[in-house]
Amino acid sequence: MKHVTRIADLGPEALERILARAKEWKAGPPPRHLRGKILGMIFFNPSLRTRASFEAVMARGGGRAIIIEAGAGAWKLEDRVGVVMNADCPEHLKEAVPVMSRYVDVLAVRSFSRSISDEDDNADAVLRAFQKYATVPVISMESAREHPCQGLADLMTIEESFTEPKGLPVTLTWAPHIKPLPKAVPNSFLLTAAARGCEVRVAHPPGFELHHEIRAEAEALAKNAGGKICYFREQDSALIGTRAIYAKAWGPATARELPADSVTRHNDWMITARQMNLAAPEAIFLHCLPVRRNVEVADEVLDGKWSRVIDQAENRFHVQRALLDWLLN
Amino acid sequence: MKHVTRIADLGPEALERILARAKEWKAGPPPRHLRGKILGMIFFNPSLRTRASFEAVMARGGGRAIIIEAGAGAWKLEDRVGVVMNADCPEHLKEAVPVMSRYVDVLAVRSFSRSISDEDDNADAVLRAFQKYATVPVISMESAREHPCQGLADLMTIEESFTEPKGLPVTLTWAPHIKPLPKAVPNSFLLTAAARGCEVRVAHPPGFELHHEIRAEAEALAKNAGGKICYFREQDSALIGTRAIYAKAWGPATARELPADSVTRHNDWMITARQMNLAAPEAIFLHCLPVRRNVEVADEVLDGKWSRVIDQAENRFHVQRALLDWLLN
Amino acid sequence: MKHVTRIADLGPEALERILARAKEWKAGPPPRHLRGKILGMIFFNPSLRTRASFEAVMARGGGRAIIIEAGAGAWKLEDRVGVVMNADCPEHLKEAVPVMSRYVDVLAVRSFSRSISDEDDNADAVLRAFQKYATVPVISMESAREHPCQGLADLMTIEESFTEPKGLPVTLTWAPHIKPLPKAVPNSFLLTAAARGCEVRVAHPPGFELHHEIRAEAEALAKNAGGKICYFREQDSALIGTRAIYAKAWGPATARELPADSVTRHNDWMITARQMNLAAPEAIFLHCLPVRRNVEVADEVLDGKWSRVIDQAENRFHVQRALLDWLLN
Repeated sequence: MKHVTRIADLGPEALERILARAKEWKAGPPPRHLRGKILGMIFFNPSLRTRASFEAVMARGGGRAIIIEAGAGAWKLEDRVGVVMNADCPEHLKEAVPVMSRYVDVLAVRSFSRSISDEDDNADAVLRAFQKYATVPVISMESAREHPCQGLADLMTIEESFTEPKGLPVTLTWAPHIKPLPKAVPNSFLLTAAARGCEVRVAHPPGFELHHEIRAEAEALAKNAGGKICYFREQDSALIGTRAIYAKAWGPATARELPADSVTRHNDWMITARQMNLAAPEAIFLHCLPVRRNVEVADEVLDGKWSRVIDQAENRFHVQRALLDWLLN
Repeated sequence: MKHVTRIADLGPEALERILARAKEWKAGPPPRHLRGKILGMIFFNPSLRTRASFEAVMARGGGRAIIIEAGAGAWKLEDRVGVVMNADCPEHLKEAVPVMSRYVDVLAVRSFSRSISDEDDNADAVLRAFQKYATVPVISMESAREHPCQGLADLMTIEESFTEPKGLPVTLTWAPHIKPLPKAVPNSFLLTAAARGCEVRVAHPPGFELHHEIRAEAEALAKNAGGKICYFREQDSALIGTRAIYAKAWGPATARELPADSVTRHNDWMITARQMNLAAPEAIFLHCLPVRRNVEVADEVLDGKWSRVIDQAENRFHVQRALLDWLLN
Repeated sequence: MKHVTRIADLGPEALERILARAKEWKAGPPPRHLRGKILGMIFFNPSLRTRASFEAVMARGGGRAIIIEAGAGAWKLEDRVGVVMNADCPEHLKEAVPVMSRYVDVLAVRSFSRSISDEDDNADAVLRAFQKYATVPVISMESAREHPCQGLADLMTIEESFTEPKGLPVTLTWAPHIKPLPKAVPNSFLLTAAARGCEVRVAHPPGFELHHEIRAEAEALAKNAGGKICYFREQDSALIGTRAIYAKAWGPATARELPADSVTRHNDWMITARQMNLAAPEAIFLHCLPVRRNVEVADEVLDGKWSRVIDQAENRFHVQRALLDWLLN
């Protein structure tokens, strides 16, 4: 059974096929290609784009989405094996996931990070439990470790502007924020850009390293695709001549408590016109959204000629449509 | 691009056409006239009738509704321009609205009042931001200033009982409540009844005046439609011989803190059989619902021969169906 | 108008017909038999299985479900007659239910127990109000008194393993829990198994008696169907040679405060392999879910050869499909 929980779940052929179909169908999709299909969506965290774009994919394709909000409209779910369930979770994933599998054709889950540690994020226990207990394909709508649908939309957006991703210099830069965010989005951008053969430049302040397994996996993907990855501890060098600047806030590598002065200390990492002008003249600006204006990115960039953030969000719809078609048909 | 955020967005022809179609299709609607269409509904406040009636319209018409609850299933949305977003809103309407526009065919928004001041309500910042940033038509499902779908349903209900609205005496009367409510519903009833040429009588205790811009707009609409508007500071004179009594609670004009004795001081404004008997024998009773029984209106009225409140709520469905058809087809 | 709020709402013929159709359609259902139909679902309490299974039934059948969460996406609803509504419920069921009836073809409601007393549960005021005020059929998705869709799924699961329910020994056993739960599920299992003519054995510690009206109703149903009901105050005797063990936690009969030592005092009532081995070799294990593992039931039972809990949850879908077809077609 096919699952899409990591970029590694898609080999280079599937990746190529899904991105090609997404671009093709953006112009004119086949009608009702998901007719009669039901997507079960389980959210452990709030969502706007993900929820609306997946619902729209199912509606446009003639299928239906069913939404369960764990902890809100439904209850909290236990994932630990062998535990005596006498605390606040009244149901185990061992029951909830097989049961949901009986009602739907695909299960999509937003499990998110529990904000315990990088090791906990990398282990991705909740999503792994879904994959283990499900009897239908599982799609990640962002877990602690990765956000593959976002990675696909990111690369689709880049390839719409520059056609050929191989060897294309693109920069993932850390951005300031008011709190430490999980690393699923930067991880997925890094992995997907690597798998498409980009020259990926990753810039962040010391102490904000991505997990060593992610970096090793990206290295292997880049090698296989003929691309490369470089890391920078200051921002400007990573921006000079680049074709795409992807700004994203994430938390420190070793602890989830952000030092009190993290934001003020690094607030010159906020992307402004100055940084955009270091990049190539045709460079584009990307962000997964939601974005905190004038904290992560200045208004002048989001409202300026460089920004592709709305197209990037629209592309979530197109890659997810192609992904569901690939999983189900 | 057409929007429906105020009664003024509909000229007299569109108003006539939508009401006529709503009445015609109540008997037998065309099948699947919204086939393949997606309505995106964004709620900043809870809803029962609005949500269920719009979902039913889309379902009956062969389309689909997608629901986003800002602050619940999704996050809080910022509307101020140029702000440094370091507080509790992680996303700006500048991103959320264009993104949603990419997934759906129409955006409906319940922005409600922020309960700051009448000036703030009249400025209607959140709804205006939707209208500014959207790339698809925007429908108001009640904003701080108006509730046009309610106004349409109100007049449809009156016209079902009396056919000709021109010159028909109808009364909007303030009602007691346990807290100060926004004025969108009385505003929309006044504006719509004025636009249909009714003889509109508005009664409220001193200090509960509607906003001067609304009154001026209603005056102009009445003049244009050959109707008139009269204001009363006591209730009985406004009721004598009237054909429809519309009861609605709303807050004082100048401050949102209700004087401690507001309810008890004016509790004789609650509509009972005594008031209904001042009206014409064939008079009907209207309320937008939800209604606090025995606070705003006595059981004997809601459960009596006069009440059309359930039909009025049903008519939300019919006018919204006609409205969406007018916007989309 | 047909309603399904209690097992007694279905005579033996309807019960037989719905179960037969559910089994038949599990293999291959008719396409789009609910085309154009809208199910309105109102939840006063969270739900996972019920919500997802009903949404899936409507989607698979070509219809649509509309979901209202009272107190969450919508507001709290008053059910008392004649009350002055000056407290926390802004809307009365007298309005909400007729209004919803105008938008949908069937109303499903989860009203649940208010955890006041067994008498209050048995009176089932909220569900009775729905039945009184609705102008379309009402389905209970679990009220304070009964959970008829669960009872139907329970018996379908038993009949899939043993074909003939008449005279079949089946055991409903109380199970430990961290808090006192309502009795709707044990009530419905007892009533449905009685109506199908099983030899029903009910085991619970002293003080956890089911309501006398439920027991009398079950007695009459058993007599009519040629079955019988026996009560046990210790567990083992009720298990020997039985074909199905249904474990369910519920609260004490006379008070909702569980004595401090209730769980520890009766924790030998937790179902383990030891208990399963007292039953017939082909015996199956049932639970309505959600289940607290290693509190109500040991992992070895839920993960062992006996368990049919996932099939039982799947069967919710099948019986509800047959039920809606019976109500609407």
